[in-house]
Amino acid sequence: MVVSDPVASASDGASSESREPLRERFEQVREFTLLLCEPLAVEDYVLQNMDDVSPTKWHLAHTTWFFERFVLQEYAADYEPWEVPYDFLFNSYYNTVGAMHTRSRRGQLSRPTVGDVLRYRREVDARILDLVSGCDTQTLEQLAPVLTLGCQHEQQHQELVLTDLKYNLSCNPLLPAYHEAPKSASAISPARQEWVSFEGGIREIGHAGPGFCFDNEGPRHEILLRPFALSSRLVTNGEFLAFVEAGGYERPEPWLDLGYAVIRTQGRGHPLYWYREDGVWMQYTLGGPVRLDLAEPVCHVSFFEADAFARFTGYRLPNEGEWEAAAADRPLEGNTAERMRFHVEAAPPARGVFSQIYGDVWEWTASPYTGYPGYRPAAGALGEYNGKFMCNQYVLRGGSCATSLSHLRPTYRNFFPPEAQWQFTGIRLASDA
Amino acid sequence: MVVSDPVASASDGASSESREPLRERFEQVREFTLLLCEPLAVEDYVLQNMDDVSPTKWHLAHTTWFFERFVLQEYAADYEPWEVPYDFLFNSYYNTVGAMHTRSRRGQLSRPTVGDVLRYRREVDARILDLVSGCDTQTLEQLAPVLTLGCQHEQQHQELVLTDLKYNLSCNPLLPAYHEAPKSASAISPARQEWVSFEGGIREIGHAGPGFCFDNEGPRHEILLRPFALSSRLVTNGEFLAFVEAGGYERPEPWLDLGYAVIRTQGRGHPLYWYREDGVWMQYTLGGPVRLDLAEPVCHVSFFEADAFARFTGYRLPNEGEWEAAAADRPLEGNTAERMRFHVEAAPPARGVFSQIYGDVWEWTASPYTGYPGYRPAAGALGEYNGKFMCNQYVLRGGSCATSLSHLRPTYRNFFPPEAQWQFTGIRLASDA
Amino acid sequence: MVVSDPVASASDGASSESREPLRERFEQVREFTLLLCEPLAVEDYVLQNMDDVSPTKWHLAHTTWFFERFVLQEYAADYEPWEVPYDFLFNSYYNTVGAMHTRSRRGQLSRPTVGDVLRYRREVDARILDLVSGCDTQTLEQLAPVLTLGCQHEQQHQELVLTDLKYNLSCNPLLPAYHEAPKSASAISPARQEWVSFEGGIREIGHAGPGFCFDNEGPRHEILLRPFALSSRLVTNGEFLAFVEAGGYERPEPWLDLGYAVIRTQGRGHPLYWYREDGVWMQYTLGGPVRLDLAEPVCHVSFFEADAFARFTGYRLPNEGEWEAAAADRPLEGNTAERMRFHVEAAPPARGVFSQIYGDVWEWTASPYTGYPGYRPAAGALGEYNGKFMCNQYVLRGGSCATSLSHLRPTYRNFFPPEAQWQFTGIRLASDA
Amino acid sequence: MVVSDPVASASDGASSESREPLRERFEQVREFTLLLCEPLAVEDYVLQNMDDVSPTKWHLAHTTWFFERFVLQEYAADYEPWEVPYDFLFNSYYNTVGAMHTRSRRGQLSRPTVGDVLRYRREVDARILDLVSGCDTQTLEQLAPVLTLGCQHEQQHQELVLTDLKYNLSCNPLLPAYHEAPKSASAISPARQEWVSFEGGIREIGHAGPGFCFDNEGPRHEILLRPFALSSRLVTNGEFLAFVEAGGYERPEPWLDLGYAVIRTQGRGHPLYWYREDGVWMQYTLGGPVRLDLAEPVCHVSFFEADAFARFTGYRLPNEGEWEAAAADRPLEGNTAERMRFHVEAAPPARGVFSQIYGDVWEWTASPYTGYPGYRPAAGALGEYNGKFMCNQYVLRGGSCATSLSHLRPTYRNFFPPEAQWQFTGIRLASDA
Repeated sequence: MVVSDPVASASDGASSESREPLRERFEQVREFTLLLCEPLAVEDYVLQNMDDVSPTKWHLAHTTWFFERFVLQEYAADYEPWEVPYDFLFNSYYNTVGAMHTRSRRGQLSRPTVGDVLRYRREVDARILDLVSGCDTQTLEQLAPVLTLGCQHEQQHQELVLTDLKYNLSCNPLLPAYHEAPKSASAISPARQEWVSFEGGIREIGHAGPGFCFDNEGPRHEILLRPFALSSRLVTNGEFLAFVEAGGYERPEPWLDLGYAVIRTQGRGHPLYWYREDGVWMQYTLGGPVRLDLAEPVCHVSFFEADAFARFTGYRLPNEGEWEAAAADRPLEGNTAERMRFHVEAAPPARGVFSQIYGDVWEWTASPYTGYPGYRPAAGALGEYNGKFMCNQYVLRGGSCATSLSHLRPTYRNFFPPEAQWQFTGIRLASDA
Repeated sequence: MVVSDPVASASDGASSESREPLRERFEQVREFTLLLCEPLAVEDYVLQNMDDVSPTKWHLAHTTWFFERFVLQEYAADYEPWEVPYDFLFNSYYNTVGAMHTRSRRGQLSRPTVGDVLRYRREVDARILDLVSGCDTQTLEQLAPVLTLGCQHEQQHQELVLTDLKYNLSCNPLLPAYHEAPKSASAISPARQEWVSFEGGIREIGHAGPGFCFDNEGPRHEILLRPFALSSRLVTNGEFLAFVEAGGYERPEPWLDLGYAVIRTQGRGHPLYWYREDGVWMQYTLGGPVRLDLAEPVCHVSFFEADAFARFTGYRLPNEGEWEAAAADRPLEGNTAERMRFHVEAAPPARGVFSQIYGDVWEWTASPYTGYPGYRPAAGALGEYNGKFMCNQYVLRGGSCATSLSHLRPTYRNFFPPEAQWQFTGIRLASDA
Repeated sequence: MVVSDPVASASDGASSESREPLRERFEQVREFTLLLCEPLAVEDYVLQNMDDVSPTKWHLAHTTWFFERFVLQEYAADYEPWEVPYDFLFNSYYNTVGAMHTRSRRGQLSRPTVGDVLRYRREVDARILDLVSGCDTQTLEQLAPVLTLGCQHEQQHQELVLTDLKYNLSCNPLLPAYHEAPKSASAISPARQEWVSFEGGIREIGHAGPGFCFDNEGPRHEILLRPFALSSRLVTNGEFLAFVEAGGYERPEPWLDLGYAVIRTQGRGHPLYWYREDGVWMQYTLGGPVRLDLAEPVCHVSFFEADAFARFTGYRLPNEGEWEAAAADRPLEGNTAERMRFHVEAAPPARGVFSQIYGDVWEWTASPYTGYPGYRPAAGALGEYNGKFMCNQYVLRGGSCATSLSHLRPTYRNFFPPEAQWQFTGIRLASDA
Repeated sequence: MVVSDPVASASDGASSESREPLRERFEQVREFTLLLCEPLAVEDYVLQNMDDVSPTKWHLAHTTWFFERFVLQEYAADYEPWEVPYDFLFNSYYNTVGAMHTRSRRGQLSRPTVGDVLRYRREVDARILDLVSGCDTQTLEQLAPVLTLGCQHEQQHQELVLTDLKYNLSCNPLLPAYHEAPKSASAISPARQEWVSFEGGIREIGHAGPGFCFDNEGPRHEILLRPFALSSRLVTNGEFLAFVEAGGYERPEPWLDLGYAVIRTQGRGHPLYWYREDGVWMQYTLGGPVRLDLAEPVCHVSFFEADAFARFTGYRLPNEGEWEAAAADRPLEGNTAERMRFHVEAAPPARGVFSQIYGDVWEWTASPYTGYPGYRPAAGALGEYNGKFMCNQYVLRGGSCATSLSHLRPTYRNFFPPEAQWQFTGIRLASDA
């Protein structure tokens, strides 16, 4: 998701919503973004410590620009842009609607200030709410799906606000905490690992409505599965540490050739945010440094690390068809952003079922990110860019502790390059039946 | 194939060959490599003008080392290595059998000289032939598959000798020719383009024997296809030039995001080896510079260029399942290395069938290179590395004018990164039915 | 000066100052730094838009750390560091006193916040003033030179605060102003250029006291000069524009080989901060964008540009001996930081004398920065690093509109690499007599 | 000298030579170049293993092109270039006479072959000799200085042939020898080190004729020296090893800031070509690997290493004025290229005099390379480039074991960037008196 804003399919059902739920949904989503910023100092909003992350200030402004550009400028009579240069500064990659500021230079800007951006947000919010309340029904039907899309888009950026902040703060030798993390009851020992079996055959995956989805979740289509098994829970820190301590990073055998080159070149020897202090394995979290909890799911591993770990243990990663087929009838629940923990939790005791599905960590699949058969991006600027990122990325499923549950679905396809570590990403093992 | 040596499955049938055909096959393959080198000056053997290519001298030595290391050292009694440092210099990436010289520095070596390497080849060849003639039947059964694999491996390097030389010579402002190319009867106009339709349903792809295959061609397995159509012939230079002249490289719409970044960063505006001279489009070939023939298949395009062209025209690239299903019952014939032309030819007149399948150019598919369901690399050094390259590469099918026909099969899977241009790579369009 | 903190010679006369002037000087210098920061938003303090510049926040903290480390920790009884990690974060390159944070990562830190740093400043200031007031005479004699050095050091960083901010803000497409610049009476036309002649012979240069100097200003020593002439005023924007418009950047003749490589590689075609808008030459200043004033001195040119311009016009740059000999008896006055303009001014009408000597722009000399004969760095941490930067840099003389007059002397030697543009640097022409 | 061809002053006395000595000199110099190539395999001529070195083939062709371009094309009636593209391929940096091939790509060319280049040499040689024999006296007077310059130019490239080959061959893990080195009588112990004192005062340096010099050797001019002392001999391997073993490369104190960054970034811990094998210090030489001889002068150190060693020992490097004043009346003799050893020799026993002046190693001075007072490059293409390299380089004096004695003079100024190691460069210590 780092370089993309997956956009909505044309067929989402948002246009049938009435005005009030639309307003409420909009206000809730916008409010939650500000809630995430509450612990920040002004200085925190400015940082961009690698090209892949953006300053918090940019996220606040870009999500606002999205509503301004695609709702107000399209549907509000005589709307004039708040500040003309914002169209340049806060466009992400919608080439059709104009030129844009270079991604890697977002951290070079001190102006507009955080205060300026918050004023911009408030003004756009007021205008959006006025528009939704006051427009005619035909306009409402047209703008409702765009507004819904804008909310989903903002939820994606809420997750990025957290992951980007975590990265930015982690570069500071003081290792400052983002917030005071809620205490979690640490497991005495990790839940037992079990295998859950699934039958093969022709299955359907992909979104078929009703409700919102991004266009890359469709069309719904048949796939052919072979019998398979999935682990009942995520791989733990303890299990991954065993791989580290067995010299897993020191020899090429378990690694993809490209992955081994990456860990050699970058000198990686463990997941991102792990470090040793006086012989003790520590981990930087949004609550500051903590001792590594061996019962918790391993987090901040790249696809390369997930894949190498799986091969080392004799198993493999699931493909996305397997994952979706297995998840299809499981309840939508988990350790997600609403809990405001922004950190993983140890799995509940095993009960022979596929669990820890939503929340905690995005699960790397073995599936390169490509378009489903018959996939066509939507027309116009909003549909212009969705398929653009279907190259050299892998699909992740299930959401993380920084994803809102209201943003998740069994069909949701996230995607990142195989070397990316800074998202809340982890490992679920699979096996041929 | 740039970073890999796909290796044989354990189940190839080579062990049932008798001694004489084995010797003959070995001698033919080894002889053909030397035939390819005949036009060269000593200086030509040394060049490595980008990391992805290797000096001809290295190819000659590495293929020899393969036989020395995996046949002579394993099966010839009391065999002593020809030169101990060759094990270091001419190993490509078989980590299990030892350390190796850095790939990007192969062009830094003037010694061993070409003469030294040719002596090495002759010596190893003689020892191999002696061994095949004189060993007991049990040893023969063991070494036969390795020898067959070595011959297939050498055929892969024969193609690389040609593509690497083409690249190396193209960097010389004098644009020297590799050989005097056979004259081709230039088409007055390109063959008509037709669509050939194929039914959907469950099909099988992958190799099931008898005969040799690389392990990535198996296991044979079922796939689910939707109805589709393939173009009767390859995309021509004239068709691709229309894309260039319509500003295809100047705007982001048809491109994958990563592809557009590559052409912007590298300043690409046309296929590799095209250039304009006094307003005329020219093309560097192994026969030297020639005027661009609009009826010939376009060649030396990357996956990014193939994909962008397909999107621009409203079609798409085939996936590898479609390609193999369509090719399964077509004759194995085409403009391949045996003809010693090493350049594409215009398509024959259309007859409503799927043609230009083998030879001319490797056809980019839309399929990321991954393991087939149930794929397991063979055990030991020879199987150690095959799956290692299944990341950020795309499958190509059909072979090129630099591939030996005796090296090709419908199930053959070649693979290169999406930005690679220096192989003989081209485009076949596909469409949903 | 970019990578250095030239430090005081052991022989400066500061120890003879009484307490009160020492306190006053300290308070004035510290206050002026804060005055420079008044126009800033919090966000402005964080930026580091190239490796050579530092965030304002870092300058505020580093200058404070200097006093804490070299005065309080050395002379205040039982002093405990304010925050232990500050010793790591705000050390610049004093290896002897400990490890330090990587220079290029100073912009990665949001904490300590600006507020934290200001508290740190206030606390250290109070402790310093207490110490000066309360210490015994012997201690006062020891710490006085260090305190004086710290004030000179802070004045250097005051200039960097301005030049670094100018660079950081210039990267913002909004081109925000740092302050509202005082209006200047623009000259109708530039002052006439005259040559001022000087005799040759043996002269003395270098500092011989009394008063403070950095150790690189000594020892005072004899040099042998040949007769020479210096331009009465600095080169103007109009004169430099003529060079630009004559294609001066397009052909190699006037350039040093290295300089031509730099302008080719970086695509430079004019001084830093110049740009064209609708056919008009504009210039970014700390007061925001203004039309280029042709009568003003050209500014923000590198040594390479200064040298090429001189060669193009048939003259040369002065060497530092010539400059110092000529300046030795001229009044210490000019357009310096005290005026709070931070922008150059057109020269006064020519009167046949060497003028525009101090302030406006640092004048590039032809002299590589080396140690004077007999130069020895002072002992200990403060003297450890001064000679370290005597390589691949050129001497500049005279100070700029961002330098405090109280910081300047005829013997002052500033130095920057030949490609540096972001200081207020300009050109004075010289000629053999 | 790496990026330059210092050219002759207009005032050399060559024009008074008669035809025969001019022909003889030309033939001797050209012959010696071929003699240096005798040990090579064809493959050796092609390598360019870093940007700073050139292939032997290029040196052979470029020196020939120099005579063709500046003698034959200027003075031979109706001369037609041998091959037009050679003007592009073998021009080094004479922009005035046309565009040129990129320096860093000289190793990308296999054609023209070594045979082609040798034919080119023979043809040009024959034409030059014909021209010298047959031209009228006025033409002879004009071409004689250019021919003399071409011979001096070729002698510079003879040294580069050796140093570039040494570097190229050293990258080969086989460490092949260039030739079978003559045996040297290894010293039992190094000669005693003594200090030789010199008086201060006004001295003259620079070339004043008669005979050839490069334009950077003039004008002869007065300098002011302070009393100084020079070491009687060069620093030995044993002395430098003591610096290495005392951790000289591990701590910043003795190093220039830029030098310490270079050794840290590049991981240097000893002079180029030193390595340890089984606990023994070895050294790669043109005769192949040998055990490090502690009595021999240290060689292949950069300016940074020379400067750090001097500071570490409490001394300094001489400046070029000191060196030239000291060398002015010493005999022109030493271990130079005529001896065909191409390796340093231990100093003869000390006799209280300044010795090991010429040959063995170029001695780094503390003097940045700048133009002498009044220096003006000659007019036209030959004078176009000499001053171009007077930036970020240091002067070296005395010649090396790879320099011809007939190429040396007391006034000769060689120059290289402070990080360069691949020339035969060493250290002479100096001290204030």
